[in-house]
Amino acid sequence: MDQVNSSNSLTIAIVGFGNFGQFLAKAFVQAGHRVIGHSRTNYEAIARQLGCGFETSADALMDLHNPDIVVLSTSILSTEEVLRRFPTAKLRSCLVVDVLSVKVYARELMLRYAPEEADILATHPMFGPESGRGSWRGLPFVFERTRVRQHERCEAFLSIFRERGCTLIEMPCQEHDHYAASTQFITHTTGRMLAELKIASTPINTRGFEALLAVVETTVRDSFDLYYGLYRFNPNAKQELEKMQRALEQVRAQLEAYDRKCREAEARSA
Amino acid sequence: MDQVNSSNSLTIAIVGFGNFGQFLAKAFVQAGHRVIGHSRTNYEAIARQLGCGFETSADALMDLHNPDIVVLSTSILSTEEVLRRFPTAKLRSCLVVDVLSVKVYARELMLRYAPEEADILATHPMFGPESGRGSWRGLPFVFERTRVRQHERCEAFLSIFRERGCTLIEMPCQEHDHYAASTQFITHTTGRMLAELKIASTPINTRGFEALLAVVETTVRDSFDLYYGLYRFNPNAKQELEKMQRALEQVRAQLEAYDRKCREAEARSA
Repeated sequence: MDQVNSSNSLTIAIVGFGNFGQFLAKAFVQAGHRVIGHSRTNYEAIARQLGCGFETSADALMDLHNPDIVVLSTSILSTEEVLRRFPTAKLRSCLVVDVLSVKVYARELMLRYAPEEADILATHPMFGPESGRGSWRGLPFVFERTRVRQHERCEAFLSIFRERGCTLIEMPCQEHDHYAASTQFITHTTGRMLAELKIASTPINTRGFEALLAVVETTVRDSFDLYYGLYRFNPNAKQELEKMQRALEQVRAQLEAYDRKCREAEARSA
Repeated sequence: MDQVNSSNSLTIAIVGFGNFGQFLAKAFVQAGHRVIGHSRTNYEAIARQLGCGFETSADALMDLHNPDIVVLSTSILSTEEVLRRFPTAKLRSCLVVDVLSVKVYARELMLRYAPEEADILATHPMFGPESGRGSWRGLPFVFERTRVRQHERCEAFLSIFRERGCTLIEMPCQEHDHYAASTQFITHTTGRMLAELKIASTPINTRGFEALLAVVETTVRDSFDLYYGLYRFNPNAKQELEKMQRALEQVRAQLEAYDRKCREAEARSA
Protein backbone atom coordinates (compact mmCIF):
# COMPACT_ATOMS: atom_id res chain seq x y z
CA MET A 1 0.00 0.00 0.00
CA ASP A 2 1.25 3.46 -0.91
CA GLN A 3 1.07 5.07 2.49
CA VAL A 4 3.38 2.53 4.15
CA ASN A 5 7.08 3.25 3.76
CA SER A 6 9.80 0.92 4.92
CA SER A 7 10.35 2.83 8.16
CA ASN A 8 6.78 1.97 9.28
CA SER A 9 7.19 -1.62 8.26
CA LEU A 10 6.97 -4.16 11.08
CA THR A 11 8.33 -7.66 11.16
CA ILE A 12 5.44 -9.88 12.21
CA ALA A 13 5.85 -13.54 13.12
CA ILE A 14 2.72 -15.67 12.91
CA VAL A 15 2.90 -18.67 15.23
CA GLY A 16 0.41 -21.24 13.92
CA PHE A 17 0.11 -21.02 10.17
CA GLY A 18 -3.19 -22.78 9.49
CA ASN A 19 -6.19 -21.38 7.68
CA PHE A 20 -6.57 -18.35 9.94
CA GLY A 21 -2.83 -17.61 10.22
CA GLN A 22 -2.53 -17.58 6.45
CA PHE A 23 -5.59 -15.35 6.18
CA LEU A 24 -3.96 -12.83 8.56
CA ALA A 25 -0.58 -13.13 6.80
CA LYS A 26 -2.11 -12.02 3.51
CA ALA A 27 -3.55 -8.88 5.09
CA PHE A 28 -0.30 -8.06 6.93
CA VAL A 29 1.72 -8.41 3.71
CA GLN A 30 -0.78 -6.22 1.86
CA ALA A 31 -0.33 -3.59 4.58
CA GLY A 32 3.37 -3.51 3.75
CA HIS A 33 4.76 -5.55 6.64
CA ARG A 34 7.36 -8.31 6.62
CA VAL A 35 5.69 -11.54 7.68
CA ILE A 36 7.24 -14.86 8.73
CA GLY A 37 5.04 -17.86 9.33
CA HIS A 38 5.88 -20.55 11.86
CA SER A 39 4.41 -23.98 12.33
CA ARG A 40 5.77 -27.45 12.96
CA THR A 41 4.01 -28.43 9.73
CA ASN A 42 5.96 -27.15 6.73
CA TYR A 43 3.87 -24.50 4.97
CA GLU A 44 6.87 -22.99 3.17
CA ALA A 45 5.32 -23.18 -0.31
CA ILE A 46 2.09 -21.51 0.82
CA ALA A 47 4.08 -18.88 2.70
CA ARG A 48 6.12 -18.09 -0.42
CA GLN A 49 2.94 -17.69 -2.44
CA LEU A 50 1.64 -15.23 0.13
CA GLY A 51 4.90 -13.28 0.07
CA CYS A 52 5.98 -14.44 3.55
CA GLY A 53 8.99 -16.12 5.01
CA PHE A 54 8.57 -19.38 6.90
CA GLU A 55 10.36 -21.24 9.69
CA THR A 56 9.55 -24.64 11.15
CA SER A 57 11.89 -23.93 14.07
CA ALA A 58 10.73 -21.43 16.69
CA ASP A 59 14.37 -20.66 17.59
CA ALA A 60 15.15 -19.85 13.96
CA LEU A 61 12.00 -17.73 13.80
CA MET A 62 13.18 -15.59 16.72
CA ASP A 63 16.96 -15.62 16.13
CA LEU A 64 17.02 -15.03 12.37
CA HIS A 65 14.08 -12.63 12.02
CA ASN A 66 13.96 -10.74 15.32
CA PRO A 67 10.22 -9.96 14.97
CA ASP A 68 8.61 -6.82 16.41
CA ILE A 69 5.32 -8.63 16.87
CA VAL A 70 4.52 -12.30 17.50
CA VAL A 71 0.94 -13.25 16.71
CA LEU A 72 -0.36 -16.46 18.26
CA SER A 73 -2.73 -17.87 15.66
CA THR A 74 -2.94 -21.28 17.27
CA SER A 75 -6.14 -23.12 18.17
CA ILE A 76 -7.53 -22.55 21.65
CA LEU A 77 -6.69 -26.13 22.59
CA SER A 78 -3.07 -26.08 21.40
CA THR A 79 -2.01 -22.60 22.55
CA GLU A 80 -0.72 -23.61 25.97
CA GLU A 81 1.34 -26.46 24.54
CA VAL A 82 2.76 -24.20 21.82
CA LEU A 83 3.78 -21.63 24.45
CA ARG A 84 5.25 -24.35 26.68
CA ARG A 85 7.65 -25.49 23.98
CA PHE A 86 8.34 -21.97 22.65
CA PRO A 87 11.63 -20.18 23.50
CA THR A 88 9.56 -17.60 25.35
CA ALA A 89 12.60 -15.78 26.74
CA LYS A 90 13.14 -14.59 23.17
CA LEU A 91 9.82 -12.73 23.28
CA ARG A 92 11.37 -10.15 25.63
CA SER A 93 11.43 -7.27 23.13
CA CYS A 94 8.20 -8.24 21.33
CA LEU A 95 4.54 -7.34 21.33
CA VAL A 96 2.79 -10.68 21.85
CA VAL A 97 -0.70 -10.77 20.32
CA ASP A 98 -3.25 -13.56 20.40
CA VAL A 99 -6.29 -13.92 18.14
CA LEU A 100 -8.19 -16.55 20.14
CA SER A 101 -12.00 -16.58 20.43
CA VAL A 102 -11.78 -16.72 24.23
CA LYS A 103 -10.01 -13.86 25.92
CA VAL A 104 -9.62 -14.29 29.67
CA TYR A 105 -7.96 -17.66 29.14
CA ALA A 106 -5.72 -16.34 26.32
CA ARG A 107 -4.65 -13.38 28.43
CA GLU A 108 -3.78 -15.66 31.35
CA LEU A 109 -1.62 -17.83 29.11
CA MET A 110 0.24 -14.85 27.67
CA LEU A 111 0.79 -13.34 31.13
CA ARG A 112 2.05 -16.69 32.40
CA TYR A 113 4.39 -17.60 29.53
CA ALA A 114 5.62 -14.30 28.08
CA PRO A 115 8.45 -12.56 29.93
CA GLU A 116 7.60 -9.52 32.03
CA GLU A 117 9.37 -7.26 29.50
CA ALA A 118 7.09 -8.32 26.62
CA ASP A 119 4.07 -6.22 25.67
CA ILE A 120 0.77 -8.10 25.43
CA LEU A 121 -2.28 -7.37 23.28
CA ALA A 122 -5.32 -9.68 23.54
CA THR A 123 -7.47 -9.59 20.40
CA HIS A 124 -10.43 -11.34 18.80
CA PRO A 125 -10.97 -10.63 15.12
CA MET A 126 -14.61 -11.77 14.93
CA PHE A 127 -14.43 -13.00 11.38
CA GLY A 128 -12.53 -15.45 9.28
CA PRO A 129 -11.55 -16.40 5.75
CA GLU A 130 -15.24 -16.89 4.84
CA SER A 131 -16.95 -13.87 6.40
CA GLY A 132 -13.93 -11.66 5.67
CA ARG A 133 -13.46 -12.90 2.13
CA GLY A 134 -14.59 -9.78 0.28
CA SER A 135 -14.00 -6.94 2.71
CA TRP A 136 -13.38 -6.42 6.42
CA ARG A 137 -15.56 -3.31 6.46
CA GLY A 138 -17.70 -3.18 9.60
CA LEU A 139 -16.44 -6.50 10.94
CA PRO A 140 -15.78 -6.38 14.69
CA PHE A 141 -12.19 -6.51 15.97
CA VAL A 142 -12.21 -6.74 19.76
CA PHE A 143 -9.06 -6.03 21.76
CA GLU A 144 -7.62 -5.33 25.19
CA ARG A 145 -4.28 -3.57 25.68
CA THR A 146 -3.31 -6.06 28.38
CA ARG A 147 0.22 -4.68 28.89
CA VAL A 148 1.41 -2.10 26.41
CA ARG A 149 4.41 0.14 26.97
CA GLN A 150 5.53 0.64 23.37
CA HIS A 151 2.35 2.31 22.18
CA GLU A 152 3.45 3.17 18.68
CA ARG A 153 4.10 -0.46 17.77
CA CYS A 154 0.73 -1.52 19.18
CA GLU A 155 -1.05 1.26 17.26
CA ALA A 156 0.72 0.25 14.05
CA PHE A 157 -0.63 -3.26 14.51
CA LEU A 158 -4.17 -2.09 15.32
CA SER A 159 -4.11 0.25 12.32
CA ILE A 160 -3.82 -2.74 9.98
CA PHE A 161 -7.36 -3.70 11.03
CA ARG A 162 -8.58 -0.11 11.25
CA GLU A 163 -7.42 0.69 7.73
CA ARG A 164 -9.15 -2.36 6.29
CA GLY A 165 -12.42 -1.05 7.71
CA CYS A 166 -12.87 -3.21 10.83
CA THR A 167 -14.87 -1.77 13.70
CA LEU A 168 -12.31 -1.68 16.51
CA ILE A 169 -13.86 -2.39 19.91
CA GLU A 170 -11.64 -1.94 22.96
CA MET A 171 -13.09 -4.06 25.72
CA PRO A 172 -11.77 -5.89 28.82
CA CYS A 173 -11.27 -9.61 28.20
CA GLN A 174 -13.82 -10.47 30.85
CA GLU A 175 -16.50 -8.35 29.16
CA HIS A 176 -15.69 -9.97 25.82
CA ASP A 177 -16.17 -13.44 27.27
CA HIS A 178 -19.43 -12.44 28.91
CA TYR A 179 -20.86 -11.12 25.62
CA ALA A 180 -19.34 -13.93 23.54
CA ALA A 181 -21.01 -16.63 25.64
CA SER A 182 -24.41 -15.05 25.11
CA THR A 183 -23.84 -14.47 21.39
CA GLN A 184 -21.12 -16.52 19.68
CA PHE A 185 -21.45 -19.63 21.84
CA ILE A 186 -25.25 -19.58 21.58
CA THR A 187 -24.99 -19.17 17.81
CA HIS A 188 -22.59 -22.12 17.54
CA THR A 189 -24.75 -24.26 19.82
CA THR A 190 -27.92 -23.41 17.89
CA GLY A 191 -26.12 -24.19 14.64
CA ARG A 192 -24.85 -27.52 15.97
CA MET A 193 -28.24 -28.48 17.40
CA LEU A 194 -29.89 -27.79 14.04
CA ALA A 195 -27.09 -29.63 12.22
CA GLU A 196 -27.70 -32.58 14.53
CA LEU A 197 -31.39 -32.39 13.52
CA LYS A 198 -30.21 -32.51 9.91
CA ILE A 199 -32.34 -29.55 8.84
CA ALA A 200 -32.25 -29.19 5.08
CA SER A 201 -33.66 -26.97 2.38
CA THR A 202 -37.19 -27.80 1.20
CA PRO A 203 -39.36 -26.39 -1.60
CA ILE A 204 -41.19 -24.30 1.01
CA ASN A 205 -38.47 -22.56 3.05
CA THR A 206 -39.50 -19.43 4.88
CA ARG A 207 -36.96 -16.61 5.16
CA GLY A 208 -36.43 -17.34 8.83
CA PHE A 209 -35.68 -20.97 8.03
CA GLU A 210 -33.20 -19.91 5.36
CA ALA A 211 -31.45 -17.75 7.95
CA LEU A 212 -31.14 -20.84 10.19
CA LEU A 213 -29.75 -22.90 7.30
CA ALA A 214 -27.06 -20.24 6.81
CA VAL A 215 -26.20 -20.35 10.53
CA VAL A 216 -25.80 -24.14 10.33
CA GLU A 217 -23.58 -23.87 7.28
CA THR A 218 -21.26 -21.33 8.94
CA THR A 219 -21.18 -23.27 12.22
CA VAL A 220 -20.25 -26.65 10.86
CA ARG A 221 -17.52 -25.11 8.70
CA ASP A 222 -15.70 -24.31 11.95
CA SER A 223 -13.96 -27.19 13.68
CA PHE A 224 -15.42 -29.03 16.65
CA ASP A 225 -12.15 -28.11 18.41
CA LEU A 226 -13.04 -24.43 18.12
CA TYR A 227 -16.52 -25.11 19.50
CA TYR A 228 -15.09 -27.17 22.34
CA GLY A 229 -12.59 -24.37 23.02
CA LEU A 230 -15.44 -21.87 23.36
CA TYR A 231 -17.18 -24.26 25.75
CA ARG A 232 -14.21 -25.16 27.89
CA PHE A 233 -12.34 -21.88 28.07
CA ASN A 234 -15.17 -19.41 28.24
CA PRO A 235 -16.25 -19.63 31.88
CA ASN A 236 -19.80 -18.51 30.97
CA ALA A 237 -20.44 -21.07 28.21
CA LYS A 238 -21.47 -24.03 30.35
CA GLN A 239 -24.14 -21.97 32.03
CA GLU A 240 -25.43 -20.70 28.66
CA LEU A 241 -25.76 -24.28 27.45
CA GLU A 242 -27.81 -25.18 30.51
CA LYS A 243 -29.94 -22.07 29.98
CA MET A 244 -30.62 -23.13 26.40
CA GLN A 245 -31.79 -26.54 27.53
CA ARG A 246 -34.02 -24.97 30.16
CA ALA A 247 -35.41 -22.47 27.62
CA LEU A 248 -36.37 -25.27 25.24
CA GLU A 249 -38.00 -27.19 28.09
CA GLN A 250 -39.81 -24.01 29.03
CA VAL A 251 -41.19 -23.58 25.50
CA ARG A 252 -42.40 -27.17 25.55
CA ALA A 253 -43.96 -26.71 28.98
CA GLN A 254 -45.78 -23.60 27.73
CA LEU A 255 -47.19 -25.55 24.77
CA GLU A 256 -48.29 -28.43 26.99
CA ALA A 257 -49.90 -26.19 29.59
CA TYR A 258 -51.75 -24.25 26.88
CA ASP A 259 -52.80 -27.52 25.28
CA ARG A 260 -54.32 -28.76 28.55
CA LYS A 261 -56.13 -25.46 29.02
CA CYS A 262 -57.55 -25.45 25.47
CA ARG A 263 -58.66 -29.07 25.63
CA GLU A 264 -60.35 -28.58 28.99
CA ALA A 265 -62.23 -25.56 27.63
CA GLU A 266 -63.23 -27.57 24.58
CA ALA A 267 -64.46 -30.45 26.73
CA ARG A 268 -66.55 -28.04 28.84
CA SER A 269 -68.16 -26.42 25.77
CA ALA A 270 -68.82 -29.75 24.00
CA MET B 1 -55.49 -2.78 -12.47
CA ASP B 2 -55.87 -2.18 -16.17
CA GLN B 3 -55.90 -5.76 -17.38
CA VAL B 4 -58.83 -6.80 -15.18
CA ASN B 5 -62.22 -5.97 -16.66
CA SER B 6 -65.45 -6.37 -14.79
CA SER B 7 -66.26 -9.72 -16.46
CA ASN B 8 -63.18 -11.30 -14.80
CA SER B 9 -64.00 -9.73 -11.48
CA LEU B 10 -64.78 -12.16 -8.66
CA THR B 11 -66.74 -11.53 -5.52
CA ILE B 12 -64.53 -12.72 -2.67
CA ALA B 13 -65.75 -13.01 0.91
CA ILE B 14 -63.06 -13.01 3.59
CA VAL B 15 -64.21 -14.81 6.74
CA GLY B 16 -62.01 -13.59 9.58
CA PHE B 17 -60.96 -10.01 9.02
CA GLY B 18 -57.95 -9.65 11.32
CA ASN B 19 -54.46 -8.58 10.35
CA PHE B 20 -54.00 -11.27 7.73
CA GLY B 21 -57.52 -11.04 6.29
CA GLN B 22 -57.10 -7.29 5.81
CA PHE B 23 -53.70 -7.88 4.22
CA LEU B 24 -55.28 -10.28 1.69
CA ALA B 25 -58.26 -7.97 1.11
CA LYS B 26 -55.95 -5.17 0.00
CA ALA B 27 -54.32 -7.40 -2.62
CA PHE B 28 -57.66 -8.77 -3.86
CA VAL B 29 -59.06 -5.23 -4.27
CA GLN B 30 -55.89 -4.17 -6.11
CA ALA B 31 -56.38 -7.13 -8.47
CA GLY B 32 -59.78 -5.71 -9.36
CA HIS B 33 -62.05 -8.01 -7.34
CA ARG B 34 -65.05 -7.15 -5.19
CA VAL B 35 -64.20 -8.00 -1.59
CA ILE B 36 -66.47 -8.31 1.44
CA GLY B 37 -65.01 -8.83 4.87
CA HIS B 38 -66.79 -10.77 7.60
CA SER B 39 -66.06 -10.97 11.27
CA ARG B 40 -68.12 -10.87 14.45
CA THR B 41 -65.95 -7.88 15.39
CA ASN B 42 -67.05 -4.82 13.44
CA TYR B 43 -64.22 -3.81 11.10
CA GLU B 44 -66.49 -1.79 8.83
CA ALA B 45 -64.38 1.37 8.96
CA ILE B 46 -61.18 -0.48 8.10
CA ALA B 47 -62.98 -2.37 5.33
CA ARG B 48 -64.23 0.89 3.83
CA GLN B 49 -60.68 2.28 3.87
CA LEU B 50 -59.50 -0.80 2.00
CA GLY B 51 -62.29 -0.47 -0.56
CA CYS B 52 -64.19 -3.53 0.72
CA GLY B 53 -67.70 -4.20 1.90
CA PHE B 54 -68.24 -5.63 5.39
CA GLU B 55 -70.83 -7.81 7.14
CA THR B 56 -70.92 -8.90 10.78
CA SER B 57 -73.61 -11.44 9.93
CA ALA B 58 -72.54 -14.55 8.00
CA ASP B 59 -76.08 -14.94 6.63
CA ALA B 60 -76.02 -11.39 5.28
CA LEU B 61 -72.57 -12.05 3.83
CA MET B 62 -73.88 -15.01 1.85
CA ASP B 63 -77.41 -13.80 1.05
CA LEU B 64 -76.65 -10.21 0.07
CA HIS B 65 -73.33 -10.71 -1.75
CA ASN B 66 -73.51 -14.21 -3.18
CA PRO B 67 -69.71 -14.60 -3.24
CA ASP B 68 -67.84 -16.71 -5.81
CA ILE B 69 -65.09 -17.45 -3.35
CA VAL B 70 -65.09 -17.68 0.45
CA VAL B 71 -61.63 -17.36 2.00
CA LEU B 72 -61.25 -18.62 5.57
CA SER B 73 -58.70 -16.29 7.13
CA THR B 74 -59.42 -17.40 10.68
CA SER B 75 -56.82 -18.53 13.21
CA ILE B 76 -56.04 -22.25 13.30
CA LEU B 77 -57.66 -22.50 16.72
CA SER B 78 -60.92 -20.76 15.81
CA THR B 79 -61.57 -22.21 12.34
CA GLU B 80 -63.65 -25.18 13.45
CA GLU B 81 -65.86 -23.04 15.66
CA VAL B 82 -66.31 -20.48 12.86
CA LEU B 83 -67.34 -23.24 10.45
CA ARG B 84 -69.66 -24.79 13.02
CA ARG B 85 -71.69 -21.60 13.38
CA PHE B 86 -71.47 -20.69 9.66
CA PRO B 87 -74.50 -21.22 7.37
CA THR B 88 -72.39 -23.75 5.46
CA ALA B 89 -75.29 -24.87 3.23
CA LYS B 90 -74.91 -21.46 1.57
CA LEU B 91 -71.39 -22.40 0.45
CA ARG B 92 -72.87 -24.79 -2.13
CA SER B 93 -71.94 -22.76 -5.20
CA CYS B 94 -68.65 -21.39 -3.82
CA LEU B 95 -64.97 -22.12 -3.97
CA VAL B 96 -63.97 -22.45 -0.31
CA VAL B 97 -60.32 -21.51 0.32
CA ASP B 98 -58.35 -21.61 3.55
CA VAL B 99 -55.05 -19.86 4.26
CA LEU B 100 -54.05 -21.75 7.43
CA SER B 101 -50.45 -22.67 8.25
CA VAL B 102 -51.41 -26.33 8.75
CA LYS B 103 -52.94 -28.08 5.79
CA VAL B 104 -54.13 -31.63 6.55
CA TYR B 105 -56.21 -30.33 9.44
CA ALA B 106 -57.61 -27.41 7.40
CA ARG B 107 -58.51 -29.74 4.53
CA GLU B 108 -60.31 -32.08 6.90
CA LEU B 109 -62.36 -29.22 8.34
CA MET B 110 -63.36 -27.94 4.89
CA LEU B 111 -64.28 -31.44 3.69
CA ARG B 112 -66.32 -32.00 6.83
CA TYR B 113 -68.20 -28.67 6.97
CA ALA B 114 -68.53 -27.54 3.33
CA PRO B 115 -71.32 -29.14 1.28
CA GLU B 116 -70.34 -31.76 -1.27
CA GLU B 117 -71.16 -29.33 -4.11
CA ALA B 118 -68.63 -26.73 -2.95
CA ASP B 119 -65.16 -26.60 -4.48
CA ILE B 120 -62.24 -26.64 -2.03
CA LEU B 121 -58.76 -25.16 -2.35
CA ALA B 122 -56.29 -25.59 0.52
CA THR B 123 -53.58 -22.89 0.52
CA HIS B 124 -50.75 -21.58 2.63
CA PRO B 125 -49.39 -18.17 1.66
CA MET B 126 -46.02 -18.45 3.49
CA PHE B 127 -45.71 -14.77 4.25
CA GLY B 128 -47.60 -12.05 6.04
CA PRO B 129 -48.04 -8.31 6.38
CA GLU B 130 -44.39 -8.00 7.50
CA SER B 131 -42.50 -10.23 5.07
CA GLY B 132 -44.88 -9.33 2.23
CA ARG B 133 -44.87 -5.62 2.96
CA GLY B 134 -42.85 -4.48 -0.04
CA SER B 135 -43.41 -7.13 -2.67
CA TRP B 136 -44.63 -10.72 -2.89
CA ARG B 137 -41.98 -11.55 -5.49
CA GLY B 138 -40.51 -15.00 -4.86
CA LEU B 139 -42.57 -15.62 -1.73
CA PRO B 140 -43.90 -19.19 -1.57
CA PHE B 141 -47.63 -19.80 -2.02
CA VAL B 142 -48.38 -23.48 -1.37
CA PHE B 143 -51.68 -24.98 -2.47
CA GLU B 144 -53.59 -28.20 -3.06
CA ARG B 145 -56.62 -28.37 -5.40
CA THR B 146 -58.51 -30.49 -2.88
CA ARG B 147 -61.76 -30.60 -4.85
CA VAL B 148 -61.97 -28.35 -7.88
CA ARG B 149 -64.56 -28.73 -10.60
CA GLN B 150 -64.88 -25.09 -11.71
CA HIS B 151 -61.30 -24.71 -12.84
CA GLU B 152 -61.54 -21.21 -14.27
CA ARG B 153 -62.64 -19.72 -10.95
CA CYS B 154 -59.85 -21.50 -9.11
CA GLU B 155 -57.26 -20.32 -11.65
CA ALA B 156 -58.55 -16.75 -11.39
CA PHE B 157 -57.93 -16.92 -7.63
CA LEU B 158 -54.47 -18.47 -7.99
CA SER B 159 -53.54 -15.88 -10.60
CA ILE B 160 -53.90 -13.10 -8.00
CA PHE B 161 -50.86 -14.58 -6.25
CA ARG B 162 -49.07 -15.51 -9.47
CA GLU B 163 -49.39 -12.01 -10.87
CA ARG B 164 -47.97 -10.45 -7.72
CA GLY B 165 -44.84 -12.58 -8.19
CA CYS B 166 -45.41 -15.38 -5.63
CA THR B 167 -43.77 -18.71 -6.34
CA LEU B 168 -46.78 -21.05 -6.64
CA ILE B 169 -46.06 -24.51 -5.26
CA GLU B 170 -48.71 -27.18 -5.81
CA MET B 171 -48.21 -29.83 -3.15
CA PRO B 172 -50.40 -32.34 -1.31
CA CYS B 173 -51.42 -31.14 2.17
CA GLN B 174 -49.60 -34.03 3.79
CA GLU B 175 -46.35 -33.15 2.08
CA HIS B 176 -46.77 -29.51 3.13
CA ASP B 177 -47.18 -30.50 6.78
CA HIS B 178 -44.18 -32.81 6.62
CA TYR B 179 -41.93 -30.03 5.27
CA ALA B 180 -43.50 -27.33 7.47
CA ALA B 181 -42.77 -29.28 10.66
CA SER B 182 -39.09 -29.57 9.73
CA THR B 183 -38.83 -25.92 8.65
CA GLN B 184 -41.48 -23.51 9.93
CA PHE B 185 -42.14 -25.21 13.26
CA ILE B 186 -38.41 -25.62 13.94
CA THR B 187 -37.85 -21.96 13.08
CA HIS B 188 -40.64 -20.86 15.44
CA THR B 189 -39.36 -23.14 18.21
CA THR B 190 -35.78 -21.92 17.79
CA GLY B 191 -37.02 -18.33 17.86
CA ARG B 192 -39.08 -18.93 20.99
CA MET B 193 -36.25 -20.78 22.74
CA LEU B 194 -33.88 -17.87 22.02
CA ALA B 195 -36.54 -15.36 23.07
CA GLU B 196 -36.92 -17.30 26.34
CA LEU B 197 -33.11 -16.98 26.72
CA LYS B 198 -33.57 -13.22 26.23
CA ILE B 199 -30.80 -12.97 23.65
CA ALA B 200 -30.06 -9.35 22.88
CA SER B 201 -27.79 -7.30 20.70
CA THR B 202 -24.28 -6.64 22.08
CA PRO B 203 -21.38 -4.50 20.83
CA ILE B 204 -19.78 -7.67 19.42
CA ASN B 205 -22.53 -9.44 17.43
CA THR B 206 -21.36 -11.86 14.78
CA ARG B 207 -23.38 -12.07 11.57
CA GLY B 208 -24.73 -15.47 12.58
CA PHE B 209 -25.93 -14.03 15.88
CA GLU B 210 -27.62 -11.15 14.05
CA ALA B 211 -29.45 -13.67 11.89
CA LEU B 212 -30.71 -15.34 15.10
CA LEU B 213 -31.84 -11.99 16.52
CA ALA B 214 -33.88 -11.43 13.33
CA VAL B 215 -35.46 -14.90 13.69
CA VAL B 216 -36.46 -14.09 17.28
CA GLU B 217 -37.98 -10.78 16.24
CA THR B 218 -40.08 -12.37 13.48
CA THR B 219 -41.15 -15.26 15.71
CA VAL B 220 -42.36 -13.29 18.67
CA ARG B 221 -44.31 -10.95 16.39
CA ASP B 222 -46.57 -13.92 15.58
CA SER B 223 -49.09 -14.88 18.23
CA PHE B 224 -48.60 -17.76 20.65
CA ASP B 225 -51.93 -19.05 19.30
CA LEU B 226 -50.37 -19.47 15.84
CA TYR B 227 -47.38 -21.29 17.34
CA TYR B 228 -49.68 -23.51 19.40
CA GLY B 229 -51.74 -24.17 16.24
CA LEU B 230 -48.62 -25.35 14.41
CA TYR B 231 -47.82 -27.62 17.34
CA ARG B 232 -51.26 -29.07 17.88
CA PHE B 233 -52.53 -29.41 14.33
CA ASN B 234 -49.39 -30.42 12.50
CA PRO B 235 -49.11 -34.11 13.34
CA ASN B 236 -45.31 -33.99 12.84
CA ALA B 237 -44.62 -31.06 15.14
CA LYS B 238 -44.57 -32.89 18.48
CA GLN B 239 -41.94 -35.27 17.18
CA GLU B 240 -39.83 -32.39 15.84
CA LEU B 241 -39.89 -30.74 19.27
CA GLU B 242 -38.68 -33.96 20.89
CA LYS B 243 -35.98 -34.26 18.23
CA MET B 244 -34.80 -30.73 18.99
CA GLN B 245 -34.47 -31.54 22.68
CA ARG B 246 -32.57 -34.72 21.87
CA ALA B 247 -30.31 -32.84 19.42
CA LEU B 248 -29.40 -30.28 22.08
CA GLU B 249 -28.71 -33.07 24.59
CA GLN B 250 -26.59 -34.75 21.95
CA VAL B 251 -24.50 -31.61 21.40
CA ARG B 252 -23.97 -31.36 25.15
CA ALA B 253 -23.06 -35.05 25.38
CA GLN B 254 -20.52 -34.60 22.58
CA LEU B 255 -18.91 -31.69 24.42
CA GLU B 256 -18.79 -33.61 27.70
CA ALA B 257 -17.37 -36.76 26.11
CA TYR B 258 -14.72 -34.72 24.28
CA ASP B 259 -13.94 -32.88 27.50
CA ARG B 260 -13.33 -36.14 29.38
CA LYS B 261 -11.12 -37.41 26.54
CA CYS B 262 -9.03 -34.21 26.44
CA ARG B 263 -8.63 -34.02 30.20
CA GLU B 264 -7.58 -37.67 30.41
CA ALA B 265 -4.98 -37.12 27.66
CA GLU B 266 -3.73 -34.03 29.51
CA ALA B 267 -3.49 -35.94 32.79
CA ARG B 268 -1.49 -38.70 31.09
CA SER B 269 0.95 -36.26 29.46
CA ALA B 270 1.41 -34.17 32.61
